[in-house]
Amino acid sequence: MAGEASAPRRAVVLLSGGLDSYTAAAVARRDGFELYALTIQYGQRHAREVESARAIAGLLDARQHLELAVDLSQIGGSALTSSIPVPKDQPIDPSRIPITYVPARNTIFLALAMGWAEILGARDIFIGVNVLDYSGYPDCRPEFIAAFETLARLATRAGVEGATLKIHTPLIAMSKTEIIELGLSLGLDYAQTHSCYDPLPEGRPCGHCDSCRLRAAGFAAAGVADPLLR
Amino acid sequence: MAGEASAPRRAVVLLSGGLDSYTAAAVARRDGFELYALTIQYGQRHAREVESARAIAGLLDARQHLELAVDLSQIGGSALTSSIPVPKDQPIDPSRIPITYVPARNTIFLALAMGWAEILGARDIFIGVNVLDYSGYPDCRPEFIAAFETLARLATRAGVEGATLKIHTPLIAMSKTEIIELGLSLGLDYAQTHSCYDPLPEGRPCGHCDSCRLRAAGFAAAGVADPLLR
Repeated sequence: MAGEASAPRRAVVLLSGGLDSYTAAAVARRDGFELYALTIQYGQRHAREVESARAIAGLLDARQHLELAVDLSQIGGSALTSSIPVPKDQPIDPSRIPITYVPARNTIFLALAMGWAEILGARDIFIGVNVLDYSGYPDCRPEFIAAFETLARLATRAGVEGATLKIHTPLIAMSKTEIIELGLSLGLDYAQTHSCYDPLPEGRPCGHCDSCRLRAAGFAAAGVADPLLR
Repeated sequence: MAGEASAPRRAVVLLSGGLDSYTAAAVARRDGFELYALTIQYGQRHAREVESARAIAGLLDARQHLELAVDLSQIGGSALTSSIPVPKDQPIDPSRIPITYVPARNTIFLALAMGWAEILGARDIFIGVNVLDYSGYPDCRPEFIAAFETLARLATRAGVEGATLKIHTPLIAMSKTEIIELGLSLGLDYAQTHSCYDPLPEGRPCGHCDSCRLRAAGFAAAGVADPLLR
């Protein structure tokens, strides 16, 4: 109606504390969504990133920040959730799924986000998955995301009632450098993020895991210094 | 090869502690699978059923029983995970999704089962979903299960490598009476199960929620007494 301001649309944004999810969430804010940030403590060895997620939720004025715990270290099988060593200074081969792959992680994360979205009446989820400059994880690919959207239509009350859940993946086809340039254009403070898979005891990045090296290459190509390393 | 005994195939069986999942798991055992039982503590008010799941895992000689916790009461919105009252003595209308529906529950459960299956090298998951004599939950329908199987092919390393994950739903088209008759023919001890959504303080079933009444009607039609009520 004339003169009546429409309420902002709600979006659930998956926030890991890393650079990608921060940027994806910032795109949601830029596009006018009210942010409901969801961080999953999944038993990862780099739980330091959860502190970053809290800081980022504040920076982005999230309406709410929900932390859910599900201990995937009980399942194990990944270098991120078990005593399997995180590979250091190994060639990154996007055609091979590395040992840092956590089985079913994004399916679990999106399922939890879908549950919360249903309660919130949200029809939009943002996730910072990316198929370039990344580690070949199967559950980061567009075809996986599309299959999840199909599942959502069948899995929920909202879907039965005809609502469509949209999984936004604004970074999916961007290089790490493009992601960083986008984030800097949005004024993001990447000093608040944490990317390292295997941080040093004092929480500083190791500089040698895949995630540290992809991040370093991205900042180098963008021609800016990583504020985390200052 | 001749003379070489093949190892039993592993199956992840979702075990809630209720009558249906016990029966579905027993079908898996009957069919020769080695059982890896998975119970999710999701913040349900009827956490009493987790004790039943432990007993049932033992009765079925499960090779392993994994309990994972993910507190969906932080999301809320369901009578099973919040202070919303559980409906008592209300007409059961399968065409309407009741307030005991937990958003995304079976997607979350299957995602966790898929993750564990991948670690175990299992290609089979059993879940006791049922579309008859049940409460109209969207994530119990065959089309939901089929969409999850499609998702699994795209979500996992195993799927990328060409393996197919089969979600077995042996009870999906059975009446509660047929499920009970099947279980009794397999020698199951239903005294160990728990079905009530809102148990009395001492853990006994309320007798008035949908789950209690569907169970009672099933035993009555089967012509046997519910051993839980002896």
